[in-house]
Amino acid sequence: MKSKTPEESKTIMTEIVLPNDTNTLNNLRGGTILHWMDIASAIAAGKHADAVVVTASVDNVSFENPIKLGDVVTITAKVTRVFNTSLEIRLEVWAENLPSHTRYRSNEAYYTFVALDSNGRPRKSPPVEPQSEEEMKFYESALRRRELRLVLAGRMKPNEAQELKSLFSEL
Amino acid sequence: MKSKTPEESKTIMTEIVLPNDTNTLNNLRGGTILHWMDIASAIAAGKHADAVVVTASVDNVSFENPIKLGDVVTITAKVTRVFNTSLEIRLEVWAENLPSHTRYRSNEAYYTFVALDSNGRPRKSPPVEPQSEEEMKFYESALRRRELRLVLAGRMKPNEAQELKSLFSEL
Amino acid sequence: MKSKTPEESKTIMTEIVLPNDTNTLNNLRGGTILHWMDIASAIAAGKHADAVVVTASVDNVSFENPIKLGDVVTITAKVTRVFNTSLEIRLEVWAENLPSHTRYRSNEAYYTFVALDSNGRPRKSPPVEPQSEEEMKFYESALRRRELRLVLAGRMKPNEAQELKSLFSEL
Amino acid sequence: MKSKTPEESKTIMTEIVLPNDTNTLNNLRGGTILHWMDIASAIAAGKHADAVVVTASVDNVSFENPIKLGDVVTITAKVTRVFNTSLEIRLEVWAENLPSHTRYRSNEAYYTFVALDSNGRPRKSPPVEPQSEEEMKFYESALRRRELRLVLAGRMKPNEAQELKSLFSEL
Amino acid sequence: MKSKTPEESKTIMTEIVLPNDTNTLNNLRGGTILHWMDIASAIAAGKHADAVVVTASVDNVSFENPIKLGDVVTITAKVTRVFNTSLEIRLEVWAENLPSHTRYRSNEAYYTFVALDSNGRPRKSPPVEPQSEEEMKFYESALRRRELRLVLAGRMKPNEAQELKSLFSEL
Amino acid sequence: MKSKTPEESKTIMTEIVLPNDTNTLNNLRGGTILHWMDIASAIAAGKHADAVVVTASVDNVSFENPIKLGDVVTITAKVTRVFNTSLEIRLEVWAENLPSHTRYRSNEAYYTFVALDSNGRPRKSPPVEPQSEEEMKFYESALRRRELRLVLAGRMKPNEAQELKSLFSEL
Repeated sequence: MKSKTPEESKTIMTEIVLPNDTNTLNNLRGGTILHWMDIASAIAAGKHADAVVVTASVDNVSFENPIKLGDVVTITAKVTRVFNTSLEIRLEVWAENLPSHTRYRSNEAYYTFVALDSNGRPRKSPPVEPQSEEEMKFYESALRRRELRLVLAGRMKPNEAQELKSLFSEL
Repeated sequence: MKSKTPEESKTIMTEIVLPNDTNTLNNLRGGTILHWMDIASAIAAGKHADAVVVTASVDNVSFENPIKLGDVVTITAKVTRVFNTSLEIRLEVWAENLPSHTRYRSNEAYYTFVALDSNGRPRKSPPVEPQSEEEMKFYESALRRRELRLVLAGRMKPNEAQELKSLFSEL
Repeated sequence: MKSKTPEESKTIMTEIVLPNDTNTLNNLRGGTILHWMDIASAIAAGKHADAVVVTASVDNVSFENPIKLGDVVTITAKVTRVFNTSLEIRLEVWAENLPSHTRYRSNEAYYTFVALDSNGRPRKSPPVEPQSEEEMKFYESALRRRELRLVLAGRMKPNEAQELKSLFSEL
Repeated sequence: MKSKTPEESKTIMTEIVLPNDTNTLNNLRGGTILHWMDIASAIAAGKHADAVVVTASVDNVSFENPIKLGDVVTITAKVTRVFNTSLEIRLEVWAENLPSHTRYRSNEAYYTFVALDSNGRPRKSPPVEPQSEEEMKFYESALRRRELRLVLAGRMKPNEAQELKSLFSEL
Repeated sequence: MKSKTPEESKTIMTEIVLPNDTNTLNNLRGGTILHWMDIASAIAAGKHADAVVVTASVDNVSFENPIKLGDVVTITAKVTRVFNTSLEIRLEVWAENLPSHTRYRSNEAYYTFVALDSNGRPRKSPPVEPQSEEEMKFYESALRRRELRLVLAGRMKPNEAQELKSLFSEL
Repeated sequence: MKSKTPEESKTIMTEIVLPNDTNTLNNLRGGTILHWMDIASAIAAGKHADAVVVTASVDNVSFENPIKLGDVVTITAKVTRVFNTSLEIRLEVWAENLPSHTRYRSNEAYYTFVALDSNGRPRKSPPVEPQSEEEMKFYESALRRRELRLVLAGRMKPNEAQELKSLFSEL
């Protein structure tokens, strides 16, 4: 299986915040962003895997700024690393108020997917070959995030999480 | 401010998986569950706070079983603990295939919200008074999850996260 | 076929009134409630029948109070009685304005469904065994409502409607 | 207030049954038809009243034939009679499978609306002047349906329902 | 294949402008009208062809007046002419503000469709027999519009477009 | 007013074709593409104008290939030229079947918008400064398309359309 670069899976999604996406204070609901991020990252995962994919997990997401009705939301998604049958996708979400030309950050996120064959069974995806320094960094830290996912899902004991320990000593 | 029990905020949401919620293998998309969970937990937070609320963060979510087209999804949401202006909501998601009478677990999740006053500024919410043993357990562990959120958002240093340390030694 | 209690089919659905559900005076449209009630009662009927179900009829519905944008709507649905291949579901709809902590009644309703086998043909459903006094009352009055449905659909002559006559003399 | 003919409020709505409107047997959900009928009849009521209107009630609806995915649904709505601040609208729903050129009846229905002034308070609507024999018939029978609505809503005693009695003796 | 009149394919669609259909100035988005027109004209084409149809092209559309939130939109669609496997549909779009009783024109448009057989291959449709003077006019001018479509799609050389030349000399 | 490059308004939108977007042969409906293109081009126009914009017109669109359920659609939009208060946006639409790694062209299109000030009145937008050879070409040909729009809308006589004449002689 030939490796691919993160750039080959890069997916950009642009949306406008419509009335139904907001609460009564005209702030975008978190559920709508999470939904858009799922579609954008599923497309990025599908591009990398050349396959139908299903969402396996979402990492902790913190929303930094409320997004307002009528603002434009831009989501960028790129694969960071592949672990056997699962793919990790990194997303960045920015918003922009066009009339005032104000651009502000909403959040970053990591979604993981499993690629399926035509019978719906998990299948391997090609490895990721990071190119830029930033892609290298996300490739490396993917190990740590994977351990955290396994620990939080109760499938790895904290004392086996080698990378996480380094997180706690380094950061 | 008079404290409230978790039961007072309990919210049940039931949905059917419709065609638009699925991928081409007829599995429910993760984005749709995340969206439904956001609405269910926003209602639970709103009930506890008697206020309009906005999503602040979502904790790590792992989907355990694919949910199929036509299956019924039941989401239960209850407040676990309040930290000043933020509220943590715990969700459990189960699915059921009615014709075959098969019920299966999808995932659990934690969403946090900030309650807003009528000017859109954060305001305090009443404290939570857990009643059952289980509610007590979720109340206690809320501290640990909060530390993890702060560490992951870069707003707390890992070595200051007292509760997390205990997670890593205890679990 | 083993009988079931109404409680076994109980379905709770919670929704927030979003902008698209309202008219220009910010009142929830009747069509949206009728749609939500159809889904909630179809789930209750599906739980009782362990089958795919289709809506056969809706009884007269009167909306008692306008529901406002942003309010939370809670729909509770439970089977009342089974007539051969058709199931009657009773719904209660309440709304709540969370910030002002005001809860108000919207309406009650009866939907009937036909359970279908995997070839799309009507099939029998298990009988209902009412438990509480209230469930008993709804079980009894189901006969009367059924006669009214048949008379209104032109499939029963008014003078054959024994229960309806009693309604007109008793009430 | 100048009276208007039913024809002046006539509203035709045409829709295609899309995947999200169906259950897993590809039959149109009742909730979708009820929702479409609400919009079509609200437009007819709005045309007659020259006002914003809210749904007050829906009469008993029986679905005669299942409607299939991809079929075309045509809804025709016309005012039948006005009672002070409320308007009764009659709807007919037909479906058609275009490739096989098969047209079949789904149901008829009566929705009532209240017209509101710009402060959201009920206001009078112009009287209806039926023209055709059929419009005359629906104008007359509106009295009977109104009594049934009032009796079912518990706002009229059955023995005061003069028209209904005649229904039970005549039909 | 027996010819049909334009009247036989006539399709009327009525919609209310809901919040999600508008921009932040409460004007209906062009994309929503284009979407509604596509459904209305696909139904008209399907009625004429007794077949499933797919959109082949849309002619130039100019929106004459902004349509406001809450206004009612009425779309009328009728076949004008058939060219072998393709059908041209003419649409007229009007809007109305019911409370102020103001009716105004939005635009006219031409959509073309290809009728497909059950294997998804293009198939012939019956010829159109225009009846009224207006239908005759649209039947005649369909030739000119077809040439323009072919020239704009690069499938006909401008100097071969006989009818278009007459447009440029006559108009 | 400082001029801007087309690149500054560049907008990319990525979508997956979901069941509700298709007809019964699983081809994407034209109306959905037209709707997505309207949102993508409105965002591009808004970015260039730093303003709320409304759709003024859509040029002739021909769909070259049917797009299938589950395929990914990528829309790229960029401003080509500004005429006083109106902006022309060029769109390219491509689709891709991820599992088979097949990418195919759907269509190109031109939408025009009017930028509005906060009172909803048309306002001037900054001029466009094309950079690449291709952007130069689209900038030049915008004159010709504008003439065609005016002629088709009956607001310019064909014999006054200087650029169109050259189209007919050159092409």
